[in-house]
Amino acid sequence: MKVTVSRKAHFNAAHRLYRKEWTDEKNELIFGKCNNANFHGHNYEVIVHVTGAVDPETGYVIDLKILSDYIYEEVEVPFDHKNLNLDVADFAELIPTAEHIAVVIWNKLRKRIEMDKQLEVVLYETPRNFVSYKGD
Amino acid sequence: MKVTVSRKAHFNAAHRLYRKEWTDEKNELIFGKCNNANFHGHNYEVIVHVTGAVDPETGYVIDLKILSDYIYEEVEVPFDHKNLNLDVADFAELIPTAEHIAVVIWNKLRKRIEMDKQLEVVLYETPRNFVSYKGD
Amino acid sequence: MKVTVSRKAHFNAAHRLYRKEWTDEKNELIFGKCNNANFHGHNYEVIVHVTGAVDPETGYVIDLKILSDYIYEEVEVPFDHKNLNLDVADFAELIPTAEHIAVVIWNKLRKRIEMDKQLEVVLYETPRNFVSYKGD
Amino acid sequence: MKVTVSRKAHFNAAHRLYRKEWTDEKNELIFGKCNNANFHGHNYEVIVHVTGAVDPETGYVIDLKILSDYIYEEVEVPFDHKNLNLDVADFAELIPTAEHIAVVIWNKLRKRIEMDKQLEVVLYETPRNFVSYKGD
Amino acid sequence: MKVTVSRKAHFNAAHRLYRKEWTDEKNELIFGKCNNANFHGHNYEVIVHVTGAVDPETGYVIDLKILSDYIYEEVEVPFDHKNLNLDVADFAELIPTAEHIAVVIWNKLRKRIEMDKQLEVVLYETPRNFVSYKGD
Amino acid sequence: MKVTVSRKAHFNAAHRLYRKEWTDEKNELIFGKCNNANFHGHNYEVIVHVTGAVDPETGYVIDLKILSDYIYEEVEVPFDHKNLNLDVADFAELIPTAEHIAVVIWNKLRKRIEMDKQLEVVLYETPRNFVSYKGD
Repeated sequence: MKVTVSRKAHFNAAHRLYRKEWTDEKNELIFGKCNNANFHGHNYEVIVHVTGAVDPETGYVIDLKILSDYIYEEVEVPFDHKNLNLDVADFAELIPTAEHIAVVIWNKLRKRIEMDKQLEVVLYETPRNFVSYKGD
Repeated sequence: MKVTVSRKAHFNAAHRLYRKEWTDEKNELIFGKCNNANFHGHNYEVIVHVTGAVDPETGYVIDLKILSDYIYEEVEVPFDHKNLNLDVADFAELIPTAEHIAVVIWNKLRKRIEMDKQLEVVLYETPRNFVSYKGD
Repeated sequence: MKVTVSRKAHFNAAHRLYRKEWTDEKNELIFGKCNNANFHGHNYEVIVHVTGAVDPETGYVIDLKILSDYIYEEVEVPFDHKNLNLDVADFAELIPTAEHIAVVIWNKLRKRIEMDKQLEVVLYETPRNFVSYKGD
Repeated sequence: MKVTVSRKAHFNAAHRLYRKEWTDEKNELIFGKCNNANFHGHNYEVIVHVTGAVDPETGYVIDLKILSDYIYEEVEVPFDHKNLNLDVADFAELIPTAEHIAVVIWNKLRKRIEMDKQLEVVLYETPRNFVSYKGD
Repeated sequence: MKVTVSRKAHFNAAHRLYRKEWTDEKNELIFGKCNNANFHGHNYEVIVHVTGAVDPETGYVIDLKILSDYIYEEVEVPFDHKNLNLDVADFAELIPTAEHIAVVIWNKLRKRIEMDKQLEVVLYETPRNFVSYKGD
Repeated sequence: MKVTVSRKAHFNAAHRLYRKEWTDEKNELIFGKCNNANFHGHNYEVIVHVTGAVDPETGYVIDLKILSDYIYEEVEVPFDHKNLNLDVADFAELIPTAEHIAVVIWNKLRKRIEMDKQLEVVLYETPRNFVSYKGD
């Protein structure tokens, strides 16, 4: 009996899409207004899905308080009210597109979740733009 | 041509997470504030996904009025404005965690939906905590 | 320059609508399924609106962290994961209708907010049923 | 590293469910109030999911501005503020059920998205009724 | 002790903005794509606010089941799955703009709500466009 | 017959709360994590309410396309994908708190809306924190 348990959290951050090897013209062409040199920002919403067997004793796949603590430690503390490009080491050499942010969050949480459970991370950059990553 | 058709419904219920074989201390440790002896409650949102072939005559996978009736009879009538622990026989011996509630709803609806169609039940306990079950 | 600052919070609670002076029949007639003897529950959403002058030094009407702390202490701690009828003294003699819950919250917060500021409390019992109170 | 990128859009349209080979009685029986001869309408929400490898140069699966343009050209221009039955050739011989609308949108977008990427279309007819199609 | 009680409902309808005294060119100029001759449609959301004294016996301003019945009879039955221009007599001579629909709903409900209570109607034509009317 | 017409829009921006006359310690004490030197950001949602008489010819208080254009020119173009502190002249000497942003938007729109109409601006900094300003 495998169930997926999901928890929603959020963080507010600044970022900029920019590739330092490229000219300003190419950055402007590819990233448009997301390339603004002084940054812009988002209220990111993150949904973490954990799939596994239901524990017959507790009726839980994973205690949501524990999952919530992992998200707090791995995502909210390092990312909330931060500049992803300047304040977060994971994006020192990695462009903080929604795709990359979701992969970084997945990698950080994967270390905390038992390997017999599957993990998926959904990241909303805005209510109309979002991405998801399952580790494939 | 397989399409998934989805219908959202809701019910408001009280519940308590509690295992009678355990001491009060262990119940408190595992279930925390969800173990409150006098119950607490939620506006549960349930989304039922039915996947199957589109009928070439009607353009329907399943008539949403019929699916809606099944949800009303199997979920809303027995669960809405009820205490899941005290008023619902399914939870007499089963802790009403979100995981278990989703599995119970899935089992009840599975009997009503034709077997050539797949079924998934998503249950929101709060807007930030939710689970899903596909019968795996 | 008067601005309204608003903060949204939530709590999950059980309740029952019931007037002890009335017969069971009258309680059933007036309160219907909300009168279920074993309680039911809701994810209550509360929005607190504070209106006042903008402080020229800080650009704040009220620091939202402070307002958030007041809501935590006055609403979330006493109401969250509780049975409003049995666990909360404010409703020992007062039926916990949405109207009464909003008035109780307003009275509790009014003592914490400076009197040169106006206060309004909006309480969602469900996404489709809600009330508001301004102290009039 | 495969990521799903999603974009939400909307269009407002009138439609009617009706099969011309059937009698009025049969149309009424099968389609109920959706068969109203003078049409009714919806604010349709469409979510387009594109799954593929992340480009190591840009950090994108697909540029969301490009995906957004495809949705504008293939869905919003032909469907928004239109009568699906009378104004849209795709539904001249096809009943505009949510299932069929999702399949039509999927077929139109499939031609624009590179074949090494998977495509899924979710269509909300109302906040409570929605469908999805992945081309299976 | 005056409290506002609010109830949300919805209906799905087709409409067209068109003034028969005007030329096609003027209708097109003023109403743009809302003037499409074959109609378009919306999922209208309506919120009804009733403000009055809290009854000390029941703790209610108005029983939400009763308010809900009024909305069903006055709004949902006549407007849901209808063409506002062709099927609803109120709009035979009145252009069904959001403004006018809100005023019509307010007038219909005003007859049902006791005069010692204030009434406001909010009508969402889309999640981004909405109107409200209080009878002023 | 006065009706309020409302339009919702959004912009994504970076900002920082900081008063240059203050020490770093005082900025940290008052503004906490909102004072991060490298900025953070939000998906701001703005709702503009315009109240006035309904034009008997058009059934409009104000054409929503025109209101939408004003919001685009006065809010979206100057604020979207910008750093409010560094890129927007209005905040060169004014701390970009939600309160101040709402007042700035109100002042900009007030010049575009006819004076016989009332104006209110609601600004969501996050789904849980928002402000409103009516020009009082």
